Amino acid sequence: METIFKHRSIRRYKPDAIPENILDRILEAATRASTTGNMQLYSIVVSTDPKVKQALSPCHFNQPMVTEAPVVMTFCADIHRFDLWCEQRGAEPGYDNFLWFVNGAIDALLASQNAVLEAETHGLGICYLGTTTYTADKIVEILRLPKGVIPVTTVVMGYPTDCPPLTDRLPVEAVVHRDTYHDYTPEAIDRLWAERENSDETKRLLAENGLPNLARIFTERRYRKEDNVQFSRTYLDLLRKQGFMKQ
Amino acid sequence: METIFKHRSIRRYKPDAIPENILDRILEAATRASTTGNMQLYSIVVSTDPKVKQALSPCHFNQPMVTEAPVVMTFCADIHRFDLWCEQRGAEPGYDNFLWFVNGAIDALLASQNAVLEAETHGLGICYLGTTTYTADKIVEILRLPKGVIPVTTVVMGYPTDCPPLTDRLPVEAVVHRDTYHDYTPEAIDRLWAERENSDETKRLLAENGLPNLARIFTERRYRKEDNVQFSRTYLDLLRKQGFMKQ
Repeated sequence: METIFKHRSIRRYKPDAIPENILDRILEAATRASTTGNMQLYSIVVSTDPKVKQALSPCHFNQPMVTEAPVVMTFCADIHRFDLWCEQRGAEPGYDNFLWFVNGAIDALLASQNAVLEAETHGLGICYLGTTTYTADKIVEILRLPKGVIPVTTVVMGYPTDCPPLTDRLPVEAVVHRDTYHDYTPEAIDRLWAERENSDETKRLLAENGLPNLARIFTERRYRKEDNVQFSRTYLDLLRKQGFMKQ
Repeated sequence: METIFKHRSIRRYKPDAIPENILDRILEAATRASTTGNMQLYSIVVSTDPKVKQALSPCHFNQPMVTEAPVVMTFCADIHRFDLWCEQRGAEPGYDNFLWFVNGAIDALLASQNAVLEAETHGLGICYLGTTTYTADKIVEILRLPKGVIPVTTVVMGYPTDCPPLTDRLPVEAVVHRDTYHDYTPEAIDRLWAERENSDETKRLLAENGLPNLARIFTERRYRKEDNVQFSRTYLDLLRKQGFMKQ
C-alpha cells in the first residue's frame, strides 16, 4: 500500500481547511478499525475552533503546528459511553479498571492509524503528538472529558507546505523476532544503529548539543529520567481520577 | 482507501503459508508507522512454527485460528533494545516507568495497524486477539521476552476461507466530538445503539443467552467484572516484573 510507505510526519501546514466530506471520510475510516469486542471504547475529539486549538497549544509545548494545522484530533480511551449504555439497560458495567484502559487505548490507537492513513490518501499530512500523555490532565480540562475518558494520543492534520525526506528507521530485522524473542549481542546493537549513528543529521546534532553520541542526546536532552518519572506519576494519577484503576 | 473500508475480522484460515516476500513487505510496512521520538519502542514476534503456535494457543483460550492461521504476530512494547543501546554508549536510560510502557504500546499498536492494512492489501485476512493482555504473563514465558518487553496485542494472519459480512458499528457521530466532548443524553444512547440492539444477530444472541438485552450479554457473559479485575491485577503485576513501573 503506497500510502504506508510514503508516510512522513508533517510539521508545517497551509492554512487551508479540510473539506467536510474528506473529514467525514477520515472519521468513518477510523471507525472501521477493529475494536475490543466491537465495543468501540474510544472517542475522537476533532478540534477546529482556533480558540480550542490555542488552549491546547501549551499542552503540546507550543509547537506551532497545533495552531497552524486546521484540525487537531485527540484520540481518547472511552469507557464512559459504554457505561452509560449499560446503566441505562440495567446491566452492571465492570470496566473501571486497568485492563479496560489498555483495551480503550488499543481501540483509540488502531482508529487513529486508520484515520492517519485515510488522510494521507487524500493528500493530507499528519503528525502524532507524544506530548498528549505528558499533559493529559490539562487536556481533560480543556476538552471537558468526563470520568471514564482519558487522552492517549493526538494527531494534527492538514495540507503540507512541503514534503520532507522519509525518516530513517532501524533495519526491519531490528524489530522482528522469528518464533520467539532473540536477544541482542553488543555487535548486533552496533550494527543495527550504525547507519543512524553515522548520518549527517546525527553529526549535526552532536555538534549542536556538544555531546559525544546520539544515545546521550536522547537520555540527556530529549527524554530525561526525571521528566519521565514525573509524567508517569501524573498520568497514573489521572488514570485513577478518570476511573480506570479500581481494584 | 478501499482496504480500510473492506476490513473484517477473519476467524477461519486456509493452511497456505504466507510467501516470504509478502511477509517481508508486511513487516516493512509495520516499521513505517510513526513511533515516539523515532525510538521504535516495540518488537514484533512472528511465530510460524506449529510448536510455538500450539504453545500460544491456550493463551488465546484455544481459539482454533491461532493454530490454523499460518502466522501469529505478537506486538510488544519494548524498551529493552533501546536500553541496551544506551548502556552500550554510556548513556543512562530512564525509561523503566509507566510513561514508557504507554509510549511503547502506542508504537506497537500503530505498527500493528500498518501491518494489518498491508496484509489486507495482499488479500490476507487478520484477526486481533484481545486475549493477549489477559495472559501476557504466560506469553512472556513462551516467547522468552526479557525484562523491558511486554505483549500488547496479537494478530493472526493468513488466507481467509470465506468473506464474512462487514461488522456493524455505531454511527460515526457516536465516537466523534466537535471541538470539545459532548456528553450523551439518555435519548442519544438509545438512538446510537438502536440499530445494533434491533439486529437479527442481537435477537439470536438474546434467545441463546436467555437475557433481556445486549448490554447484559456484555456484562454477564463476555466481559465480567470479576475477570476484568483479575486480569487488571495480573497485567499490572507483569508491568512491574518487566520493569515498567519504577517510580
